[in-house]
Amino acid sequence: MVERRTPIPVAEAIERVMRYAGVGEEETVPLRQSYGRYLAEDLRADHDVPPFDRSPYDGFAIRAADSEGAGLDHPVEFEVIETIGAGQVAKQPVGPFQAVRLMTGAQIPEGCDAVVMLELAKQYERDGKTYMSIKRSFRPGDNISFQGEDAKKGQPLIEKGTRINPGVAALLATFGYAEVKVAKRPRIGIFATGSELLDVSEPLVPGKIRNSNAYMIEAQVLKSGAEPIYFGQLADDLEACFHAVREALDQVDMLITTGGVSVGDFDYLPAIYERLGANVLFNKIAMRPGSVTTVAEWNGKLLFGLSGNPSACYVGYELFVRPVVRTRLFSTKPHLKKAKATLGADFPKPNPFTRFVRSRVEAVDGRLIVKPVGMDKSNIVTSLAFANALMVLPGGTRGFAVGDEVDVWLLDDDEGSSE
Amino acid sequence: MVERRTPIPVAEAIERVMRYAGVGEEETVPLRQSYGRYLAEDLRADHDVPPFDRSPYDGFAIRAADSEGAGLDHPVEFEVIETIGAGQVAKQPVGPFQAVRLMTGAQIPEGCDAVVMLELAKQYERDGKTYMSIKRSFRPGDNISFQGEDAKKGQPLIEKGTRINPGVAALLATFGYAEVKVAKRPRIGIFATGSELLDVSEPLVPGKIRNSNAYMIEAQVLKSGAEPIYFGQLADDLEACFHAVREALDQVDMLITTGGVSVGDFDYLPAIYERLGANVLFNKIAMRPGSVTTVAEWNGKLLFGLSGNPSACYVGYELFVRPVVRTRLFSTKPHLKKAKATLGADFPKPNPFTRFVRSRVEAVDGRLIVKPVGMDKSNIVTSLAFANALMVLPGGTRGFAVGDEVDVWLLDDDEGSSE
Repeated sequence: MVERRTPIPVAEAIERVMRYAGVGEEETVPLRQSYGRYLAEDLRADHDVPPFDRSPYDGFAIRAADSEGAGLDHPVEFEVIETIGAGQVAKQPVGPFQAVRLMTGAQIPEGCDAVVMLELAKQYERDGKTYMSIKRSFRPGDNISFQGEDAKKGQPLIEKGTRINPGVAALLATFGYAEVKVAKRPRIGIFATGSELLDVSEPLVPGKIRNSNAYMIEAQVLKSGAEPIYFGQLADDLEACFHAVREALDQVDMLITTGGVSVGDFDYLPAIYERLGANVLFNKIAMRPGSVTTVAEWNGKLLFGLSGNPSACYVGYELFVRPVVRTRLFSTKPHLKKAKATLGADFPKPNPFTRFVRSRVEAVDGRLIVKPVGMDKSNIVTSLAFANALMVLPGGTRGFAVGDEVDVWLLDDDEGSSE
Repeated sequence: MVERRTPIPVAEAIERVMRYAGVGEEETVPLRQSYGRYLAEDLRADHDVPPFDRSPYDGFAIRAADSEGAGLDHPVEFEVIETIGAGQVAKQPVGPFQAVRLMTGAQIPEGCDAVVMLELAKQYERDGKTYMSIKRSFRPGDNISFQGEDAKKGQPLIEKGTRINPGVAALLATFGYAEVKVAKRPRIGIFATGSELLDVSEPLVPGKIRNSNAYMIEAQVLKSGAEPIYFGQLADDLEACFHAVREALDQVDMLITTGGVSVGDFDYLPAIYERLGANVLFNKIAMRPGSVTTVAEWNGKLLFGLSGNPSACYVGYELFVRPVVRTRLFSTKPHLKKAKATLGADFPKPNPFTRFVRSRVEAVDGRLIVKPVGMDKSNIVTSLAFANALMVLPGGTRGFAVGDEVDVWLLDDDEGSSE
């Protein structure tokens, strides 16, 4: 018998899954190993930035008051009493008509309140002493980076859940985070199902195809920030399947099966869910592809039954698994980033259900243009490789034409969306 | 004395560097470890896709000719002689008014040339035999995915130099690439210089700041697809510096120093280049920030002398080092991806030289809008963390205003640009 299933809207399916998204765990890693991980706590300034008044230029520190009256015909002379590099501190306070030669980044010497850029001063020796003169006046504060003007000690700078990119790494170093609290990567178990599947290293035989979904999903798991654990292919035997799934669940935070969730006759997954006593959240969604996606929950762990069709499997991961992963990575924007784009090609098919079209978004003259990839049959196989967005066409719409504005969900934007 | 330097245009600086970009090397990794690596050879179909005529639906395979004349009032009956799952092959050829029940993905049995979708057929038993009937006719080819319609054996599908994303991983698996030839990650040595630098784990002391550039650059190296090797901080001694640089060069494909390349008095790098006999490609560029960037070449290895200023250092990496890395990863689009965007905030500063402004690009109603990050002084310190683009303002221009169209170079787009 064909099992009856009641489709629910995509938004409701996502909402039902997110109720069980759970919370993340944290771990500590050395800063040098933190690139690409997600912050488990807000990054705060542990000191004022700059930590002291400093010079943004190579030049001379002076007391601005001494420069009063300087002009093209009235140079004012200063005795250069010391030279300090970045990281050095002046040995003595600076008095009237004295100056300190200093490098970019050096601390402003006591008594000084302005910096003269090197190229505005004329330096010379006289009687074994060093002097410099200037032909314009300076005001207190000129060319000084003041302590705390970039950030005050204790100020939160970056929210937890943010991915550590090179700029964040620089901030972590600046603020002394030799060790960084990051989100633990959720462990995601993966089973492939389908008696038609050959391993990647097996030669082709009639009627069979190689298992590609497992490798695709592993890459999606890594891309989303989690850790894949591949358990191999489920056997064609209910008893063996049940025990394999039951044992895998103890080792992972969530579990994905690909394939075997169609309305076909040979699907064991509903029986496995029942025997586990799992709470099936839904088993049909009003969407294409991926309508037969099933998600169940068991002891707080999610079981994702993704379609065996590669495109449906791909979309299922991005819509339902990714936001759970990102929530565990402390993101408040766990969903794919959303944008509007202009259709760059006709899409004449009607859409009885919400349709997710593998697409490519390009910026052309500052506007986002979206085109489906794999419209030509010859490209179907490569469409996922070239897609950087899902074009989302609402159910109940007829075809769309060049120039129409459509919604796109971006696959390669790491920032995400809160809903 | 202050060394005299002659600035060259940005485009010329990039061109001079790219002359020494060199060529990549390849290595073989298991498919499972290939995510995020770059293909070292074109990915080709090793077989037709689909590899045989197959059914895209659950249903019944028939001979279309037998359905002729079927209609709402004239059902045509077929005997169901066999049931095959995906991966199975029919045991016998199909004769007139016979059908085979088959699952999505199953091979079309010999003799059949159309598939009836499950929901269009009525199935029943009679006298111990299984039958199904249909009330419409089918044409030859209906609901069949033909062998080779997605890809022909031998057809190149993905260019070398492409990053392995989940879709590419799926293709590699489909075509039996259990091992994948990928580009070796270039090894990039990193030295920090600057007597003002403290290690990230050291407490702050007057006049000093923590070394953040080394960690930032390491993350940029990883992001661009290369392997960083940090050699620590160069000592304040020319002889020791020279030997450290000379020894490091034997262990890496290229070398980065950050800091110590200013026109300040304490810079040893020009002396080191001279003693090495390195060919200095340029030591000043007509750009902000990063005008004092120096690049030299020694025995085919590039030495990048990036500024100690974090923003200049960051920009220097993306403009000069990244395209070299990507060339070694076999990309034909090694440079940052370029786009046009509309300014979302005034930028009143004049631009005597080409200016690269740390910016954030967002798609708003399908248009790219760019805003500088870190315009407010309080954000300077976090500007690199939030930037996803460099806004490029040509030298010789006055300020720009809201609504102006400007060039942006995208920092997070992996695809890149050929120039």
